Amino acid sequence: MELTLDRAREILLQVARPMPKEYVPLEQCRRRVLAETITADIDFPPFNRSPLDGYAVIAETVRQATLRRPVILRQTGNISAGMVADGPLTEGTACRIMTGAPLPLGATGVVRLEDTRVLGDLVYVLDGRGAEKNLCLRGEEIVAGEAVMEAGAVINAGAMGMLALLGKTHPLVFSRPRVVVIATGSEILPVDAPLTPGKIRNSNSYMLNGQVYDAGGQVVRMSSAHDNVDEIADVMKIAPECDLVITIGGASVGDYDLIGQVYKAMSVSPLFCRVRMKPGMHVLAGVKDGRLYLGLSGNPAAAAISFENLARPVLMKMSGRQQCYRPRVQAVLAAPFNKTTDAIRFVWARCWQKQKEIYVEPLKHSSSGMLRAAIVANSLIVIPENSPPLPVGTPVEAILLMEP
Amino acid sequence: MELTLDRAREILLQVARPMPKEYVPLEQCRRRVLAETITADIDFPPFNRSPLDGYAVIAETVRQATLRRPVILRQTGNISAGMVADGPLTEGTACRIMTGAPLPLGATGVVRLEDTRVLGDLVYVLDGRGAEKNLCLRGEEIVAGEAVMEAGAVINAGAMGMLALLGKTHPLVFSRPRVVVIATGSEILPVDAPLTPGKIRNSNSYMLNGQVYDAGGQVVRMSSAHDNVDEIADVMKIAPECDLVITIGGASVGDYDLIGQVYKAMSVSPLFCRVRMKPGMHVLAGVKDGRLYLGLSGNPAAAAISFENLARPVLMKMSGRQQCYRPRVQAVLAAPFNKTTDAIRFVWARCWQKQKEIYVEPLKHSSSGMLRAAIVANSLIVIPENSPPLPVGTPVEAILLMEP
Repeated sequence: MELTLDRAREILLQVARPMPKEYVPLEQCRRRVLAETITADIDFPPFNRSPLDGYAVIAETVRQATLRRPVILRQTGNISAGMVADGPLTEGTACRIMTGAPLPLGATGVVRLEDTRVLGDLVYVLDGRGAEKNLCLRGEEIVAGEAVMEAGAVINAGAMGMLALLGKTHPLVFSRPRVVVIATGSEILPVDAPLTPGKIRNSNSYMLNGQVYDAGGQVVRMSSAHDNVDEIADVMKIAPECDLVITIGGASVGDYDLIGQVYKAMSVSPLFCRVRMKPGMHVLAGVKDGRLYLGLSGNPAAAAISFENLARPVLMKMSGRQQCYRPRVQAVLAAPFNKTTDAIRFVWARCWQKQKEIYVEPLKHSSSGMLRAAIVANSLIVIPENSPPLPVGTPVEAILLMEP
Repeated sequence: MELTLDRAREILLQVARPMPKEYVPLEQCRRRVLAETITADIDFPPFNRSPLDGYAVIAETVRQATLRRPVILRQTGNISAGMVADGPLTEGTACRIMTGAPLPLGATGVVRLEDTRVLGDLVYVLDGRGAEKNLCLRGEEIVAGEAVMEAGAVINAGAMGMLALLGKTHPLVFSRPRVVVIATGSEILPVDAPLTPGKIRNSNSYMLNGQVYDAGGQVVRMSSAHDNVDEIADVMKIAPECDLVITIGGASVGDYDLIGQVYKAMSVSPLFCRVRMKPGMHVLAGVKDGRLYLGLSGNPAAAAISFENLARPVLMKMSGRQQCYRPRVQAVLAAPFNKTTDAIRFVWARCWQKQKEIYVEPLKHSSSGMLRAAIVANSLIVIPENSPPLPVGTPVEAILLMEP
């Protein structure tokens, strides 16, 4: 059951379902994904309003005004933001108006304060050109009933403002997928335990915690188990509390690579057990009761790349996103990549732009056991299968490790 | 006191100080900024270990092994991950070993399981080439005492793994800057209040909430006040609870633009009151007791751009980041931009790459009152001051609105 990456991802995305929906207070909605179409309940602006401080006027009557031949109007009111005019504007009058205040009925423009002089209740308009442009028309941004945002939109800062504008104090969003991360391996110690011979600290669970968060999920439990089918199966009983079960370690073919046996013991139906990519070839997937199980390698870089290519799009889809993949760019190698590549390969890298060309440089320390590259990488070079060693200047594709 | 954007930013960054440091549980450290140098307490790997399942051997003794002329060794042990060997490996013997397990003393390589056959306690090595490469040497990734991460590094998923690897259960990070957002304006209603004539809902506070979050800060209070010096000053009394006080509205020159008066009443020393940029020209800044005050325009797009250019780098610096600015790229206009530009101008845009060229298209609805562009933008076009209208194909600089 060794698959191509594309096929493995396709299988997982067929099983993955968008999460249930929930109403969440708007101030907690940043980075959440909208689960409803947002229809405007109002025109916006809700009334014709002034974009500046000045005098509301009948624009045609002041068009010819100049410093030498001012148009003289009588001030009839003073509208600040939040107020409404007492009555309509009549010929020969002007109404003092503040930024954001509604124009009185009959007004067709605003003269800027700095283009007027006042003597008693008389307003001298010294320059009336363009007064008709100084107004924001009711509904010019949004018309009531219009669909302003669609389900699947990620709620960024602008969207938070828009939702507030439309009175959505509790937008309907997709729940965040709950993930359980189980580190397996008798060599794994808790991070706060004293190190003893033959043991290492549990770093993968924390790395995956960060990756889950980046993909829109939440880790609800971090557990661990020794290399023992019963013990792992026992820990896995918490599966019903979550939407995705990730194990780390025990994913390859040796005596102590147990996740396949655990799946069997727990009646998890296997989906695949190897994916043709490097690093991260040793990766299992299964499904039970509609819940996905993913078994990653214990090698940090292999686990990270398997997660990136398989778990991330799954979590993005479950989170309700329309776009489950990161952006990719065409770049050229700024340093050689000297390995022959039989299966599709992902290499931690730094990319930058210089004179319009995007350069990308593979990072050292990026062999499959190594975390250091992942700390400083801003991209992953994608090297197609059956590639020879690649010299400087080779065009390559790079995945950008940035969140929009 | 109208300044260039560069000068205004320089003034703010001179006043802004990195936040105090705090110890935070590792699982909550994603996106936080490290405030200490992380020095390795161990070599990593902490011992010579096997990268695969097989037999630990003295590599030189199996180099010539082939299917036809196997090298026959006696199995003397079985080391799984987390265990240590009982004793050293001696000539003529092999020790079964699992991925991640420590090599026994004397072993200089590992033969892959699939290159062996077993008969009783005899191990037939059928292919011993490269056995000496199948091991991870103690300290090959990290040497004890080495500085692995520096203060100022943003904690991404890889860094979380590394911190766990080094036993840092509670890394020292910079506290997140606490921000108070005060919306001023008698036209502003709470989002959940019924709309009445002349009023609009408070959208800016929520937009800024998202922007503060994106810049590494946290909004500890959202308040509002009518257009009244005393009322605004009264709300501002909560300033000591926070590190940055942002007001929205009342930042320009009209009768009801009050923030300058509030600063005076509260003995906030003014830093500037206008910045030569569009949108967002009307922006005040002040300082009192080392705490920054920023007064943004009530126009959503103006507030957003002022925040982006002034408050964001300030919050990034306070958060402890080394790099306070977003990445920029060279792009070409995919659609004309038809306005003449006297002051430096920022335009919401979408950018994409096609055949190595990066294209960027200004979004509609990007005039200063409008939020819709901010929802879908992935970049901001930077148009230098004194630019004529720009045709399709003009090279421009674009700021990428993505988080690394």
